[in-house]
Amino acid sequence: MVDIRKPILVSEAVSAVLNHAKAGETEFISIDDCEERYLASDLIADHDVPPFDRSPLDGFAIRAVDSQGVTEESPKSFKVIEEIGAGAVAAKIPTQNEAIRIMTGAQIPAGTDVIVMFELVREFEKEGEAYFELTQSFQSGDNISFQGEDAQKGASLVQKGVRITPGIKALLATFGYAEVEVFKKPKVGIIATGTELLDVDEELQPGKIRNSNAYMVAAQIKKVGAEPVYFGQLVDDLEESFQKISLELEKVDYLITTGGVSVGDYDFLPEIYKRLGANVLFNKIAMRPGSVTTVAEVNGKLLFGLSGNPSACFVGFELLVRPAILTSFSVGKPHLQKLQATLVVDNDKSNNFSRFIRSYMYFDNGKFYVKPTGLDKSGVVSSLADANCLMMLPGGANGFQKGDVVDVLLLTGEGSEWPWTTV
Amino acid sequence: MVDIRKPILVSEAVSAVLNHAKAGETEFISIDDCEERYLASDLIADHDVPPFDRSPLDGFAIRAVDSQGVTEESPKSFKVIEEIGAGAVAAKIPTQNEAIRIMTGAQIPAGTDVIVMFELVREFEKEGEAYFELTQSFQSGDNISFQGEDAQKGASLVQKGVRITPGIKALLATFGYAEVEVFKKPKVGIIATGTELLDVDEELQPGKIRNSNAYMVAAQIKKVGAEPVYFGQLVDDLEESFQKISLELEKVDYLITTGGVSVGDYDFLPEIYKRLGANVLFNKIAMRPGSVTTVAEVNGKLLFGLSGNPSACFVGFELLVRPAILTSFSVGKPHLQKLQATLVVDNDKSNNFSRFIRSYMYFDNGKFYVKPTGLDKSGVVSSLADANCLMMLPGGANGFQKGDVVDVLLLTGEGSEWPWTTV
Repeated sequence: MVDIRKPILVSEAVSAVLNHAKAGETEFISIDDCEERYLASDLIADHDVPPFDRSPLDGFAIRAVDSQGVTEESPKSFKVIEEIGAGAVAAKIPTQNEAIRIMTGAQIPAGTDVIVMFELVREFEKEGEAYFELTQSFQSGDNISFQGEDAQKGASLVQKGVRITPGIKALLATFGYAEVEVFKKPKVGIIATGTELLDVDEELQPGKIRNSNAYMVAAQIKKVGAEPVYFGQLVDDLEESFQKISLELEKVDYLITTGGVSVGDYDFLPEIYKRLGANVLFNKIAMRPGSVTTVAEVNGKLLFGLSGNPSACFVGFELLVRPAILTSFSVGKPHLQKLQATLVVDNDKSNNFSRFIRSYMYFDNGKFYVKPTGLDKSGVVSSLADANCLMMLPGGANGFQKGDVVDVLLLTGEGSEWPWTTV
Repeated sequence: MVDIRKPILVSEAVSAVLNHAKAGETEFISIDDCEERYLASDLIADHDVPPFDRSPLDGFAIRAVDSQGVTEESPKSFKVIEEIGAGAVAAKIPTQNEAIRIMTGAQIPAGTDVIVMFELVREFEKEGEAYFELTQSFQSGDNISFQGEDAQKGASLVQKGVRITPGIKALLATFGYAEVEVFKKPKVGIIATGTELLDVDEELQPGKIRNSNAYMVAAQIKKVGAEPVYFGQLVDDLEESFQKISLELEKVDYLITTGGVSVGDYDFLPEIYKRLGANVLFNKIAMRPGSVTTVAEVNGKLLFGLSGNPSACFVGFELLVRPAILTSFSVGKPHLQKLQATLVVDNDKSNNFSRFIRSYMYFDNGKFYVKPTGLDKSGVVSSLADANCLMMLPGGANGFQKGDVVDVLLLTGEGSEWPWTTV
């Protein structure tokens, strides 16, 4: 009666899923909406940066040769023959002991090769003309930002697959990308199973609980850069369930089901995979929670059968769905970031399966520390509130003690309290 | 001619800004749109979790007393009198040696106090009735998730000011928050200054560059959870500029200007602050880049005068604007997260001012390492592409050497390459 399943390693499960990942479609969008999207083509410099020799400060453009031998004791006067702001180009060419007043960002005037800061000179007027007195010498090139020193025309500055940060958006603007080629957000369908599930706006009833997995998974889908489509719940009928899954699968790029993958009497998914003619990549993973997590492929589309247990559902998404979607965006590092941290409490349970425990990790005095959030039962939804990582404890070990260094997978960054500086 | 300004410490500047931060307005939004928003009231459990004693697995509900003395050698048979799925409530009450077949998540039937896993029994049929044979004993309470063990009704599970993660959204769903009270996204105006600036879709012209700061700052504003409103550029006329700033200031909660705060001849902002009757909190900070960063307050609104230099503009936002906005959302840790990392290259420059250097930080073998991105010139926009942190080097020191442990401020999380596990 009980369907015996052969568990595979987490790493095998991840590899099996990624073997079926495929490149996402691309589209052009306005630079105004590009934040957090993934570049679908390299960002190329369309001009040198700076595009011309440029003044990095407010001051006077002079000829270095005219400053030779100038000191505090033997100062020299320069006549200011023109004044340019950023964006302007000088009309005149200074000759001996002449200068052009120049603002930050302006193009270095022809004939000059040094910028002298305002703060270093004494300005004065004579017969209605502007002058300043210089008291030191300069080398050719002093205080000049040279054309191309930041980036050269044609250089590939950011590779495709990178998520667009504020800094990368600045580069896109600099190089004239009014439209940006990014990966389309794939549609990820969600179908919940479980007759015990109430919707969020329903009153509680005996024996029932509100559906939280569908909402949580929708948030995980958005966070990773895709678009969730919620199709509601399966009814308690195999044929109707099969029809619904067949139908909805057509509308999306990936389909996630929550619940129904176990060996319980109402777990229809295994039978539905059969009727779909699905290629079941695996139906048991040597991990807790979520050992029943199942992934199948139908006509090149991935169906993720996540557990109905909230923790297992969460872990299944982060370990399997996340890298599949990010790989379709050409992301080079599609998995949760792994660090090591010191365990601050004993964790004596041993298990043949590897465990992924929702945990809180913090940095103190040069080291990371980690502790489980909540009760470490897989059904405990409340511990999700404080978790910023998953602690990963390999299977087969004899439990872990306070002080052991363990692997953790980061879920998110966090802020810091003030003061982090007193300077 | 040069306006001498007195620099204040970064920590003083941050404090001065936060003294003028005020609580944001709140609104109710659908749970479907709540991701990444900030809770404006505590998340309270509206019922116990679990809401009833619940089965954490698929199996048989029995009375512990009936299993006493049962062993491999002296097994006992139980008769299955009913079957319930999750969401259902048993109609019958088992008496001696009777059991109810039960699915994960279902309410524990009255009269029973143990759940026995399917895998532990041998099922059989006799005269058309279902039975199983038990070969071990159980204690009352074995394999039961008790009402309220995860969270008790009325408990405050998440405090206001917390950003909504997938896990917190799951909690909101669990507790019936179809509508969620969050902080409104404040409107943050952006005005660029600089006649050298071309728009992103304009062709390059001699002496001019494309405006990247406005795009970058808009992305920073969105990332922190606010709404950017771009008002275009100031024209090269003091009176018109004053009128524009006065007008736009009325439309937003904060106003950011980029450029125009220096002591150059076209830097109108200092004069505009005077005409506005603004309370200038400071106009010089002992930091590089961005020492000219100015913050003023007009009728309770903050005006951030960020530098026109892209790096300085970026740093000014992260150090000053970010915490002001996050404080208005009741965020307890509104600043960039500070960690320590080991410098992997010499940084010999010393400076009286503290430096914030766009850098890349990575974790290797239990430690964080950091290196500057790009050329470490404040005008280098290209280094923004790879930066995931700001290295913070205090002023006055004699430079820093490879191997020194320095402070870094995290800008973002990052992914990881596979494999991070081989289990």
